[in-house]
Amino acid sequence: MPTFKITLAYDGTDFSGWQAQPGRRTVQGSLQSAWQQITGSESRMTAASRTDAGVHAEGQVVGIESTTHLASNVLVRALNANLPADMVVCEVEESPAGFHAAHDARGKRYRYRVRNSRVRPLFERKYVWHVPRILDAERMLESAQCLVGTHDFASFQSAGSPRESTVRTIHAVEVQALGNDQITIDVEGDGFLYNMVRIIVGSLVEVGAGTRELEWLADAMTARDRRVAGKTAPPEGLCLVRVFY
Amino acid sequence: MPTFKITLAYDGTDFSGWQAQPGRRTVQGSLQSAWQQITGSESRMTAASRTDAGVHAEGQVVGIESTTHLASNVLVRALNANLPADMVVCEVEESPAGFHAAHDARGKRYRYRVRNSRVRPLFERKYVWHVPRILDAERMLESAQCLVGTHDFASFQSAGSPRESTVRTIHAVEVQALGNDQITIDVEGDGFLYNMVRIIVGSLVEVGAGTRELEWLADAMTARDRRVAGKTAPPEGLCLVRVFY
Repeated sequence: MPTFKITLAYDGTDFSGWQAQPGRRTVQGSLQSAWQQITGSESRMTAASRTDAGVHAEGQVVGIESTTHLASNVLVRALNANLPADMVVCEVEESPAGFHAAHDARGKRYRYRVRNSRVRPLFERKYVWHVPRILDAERMLESAQCLVGTHDFASFQSAGSPRESTVRTIHAVEVQALGNDQITIDVEGDGFLYNMVRIIVGSLVEVGAGTRELEWLADAMTARDRRVAGKTAPPEGLCLVRVFY
Repeated sequence: MPTFKITLAYDGTDFSGWQAQPGRRTVQGSLQSAWQQITGSESRMTAASRTDAGVHAEGQVVGIESTTHLASNVLVRALNANLPADMVVCEVEESPAGFHAAHDARGKRYRYRVRNSRVRPLFERKYVWHVPRILDAERMLESAQCLVGTHDFASFQSAGSPRESTVRTIHAVEVQALGNDQITIDVEGDGFLYNMVRIIVGSLVEVGAGTRELEWLADAMTARDRRVAGKTAPPEGLCLVRVFY
């Protein structure tokens, strides 16, 4: 059956996350109902990342098996005309049969946005985590480099969705202080455990605020114990930026 | 009675505009109820601009007559703790008795944001007007210069709130094309008629799209007839940036 690779952006604020659940407004549910409206047929969908409630995406990738004969450019326009205002399809490509958005992904890049200001954010309040304590972004960047490489990230995994192996490879962690009191934390890796980016960010903020030593993060990783790492940062600051194949 | 000058930002999306109305969620109503909660007393308020439903503000100015003895910095913190998430007080200053936010204003600056892209905007969808037709920002800038100076702007006034005189002075109109498919239109003047910026923007977009000649805007102004000018641009792209005293 033909498989389509769909690149999708969404504002996660008003969704109960990616995964379809009865009685909840989800990204998958909304995409499936638009797809059915256009093609008249059911579809099987896989997503690169099953983002949580409140988490955003600029480049989520979805694989859809469907018998539709509609061309990719027609699908883009038809989907965007039928999707709600908080979802946008960026691209539709035909892909080899059997394409699986999660299994075939070689890596993902997430961005976490922190607003580091005394006054709470207004227009960006649904897309940043407001941290009023003064943060040292350079200290966060330096501390974060211990995460780069192949490590056991068991300390940075929430209970509830355990994976067989907790070993992952992080390609890069970048921390940038922008002019407008914004600090962005970009994490790129071959795969992520449940809540991994949010726990890394929650831990880095403790280092940046000076309540933890520079070396603490490496010790927390070595402990392989969730209780040792920092708090889970809230979902609204997180965005799935890109998936690599 | 002491008068306070309050600089206020708000996301206009979920407000029925500035002006208090029974049974409606308004900016003035929300500010008055927070003020009463903090100071325990009623207050008389004036605003520099009675923004419409859906219009935003980065620098609205409000004058409040009140008998409170609370210091300005205490008021900032207390107000922000009591206001909803879509309103933020930026500054509170004590001002001379009799300060009137509207009558004392020497000028105002509005910014209008247009997203000029084929695909509809996602994260900024409540803060921009989406125009898919390709716009020539330089043509808009050139055409807009006829508005600068002291003119009768009767063509750019919506019915419903007529002023005694329709003569106003526009100090500057700036049109800028930014990299991310965004065109911003900044208008600064000593005062504005009802919907004036939105009608100017609606007209400029027709010039930018090429459906009107470059000289048409000057002719439309000379006509002193609302029916000759362009459509009123939607409220969500408009933001009151600053008020001058």
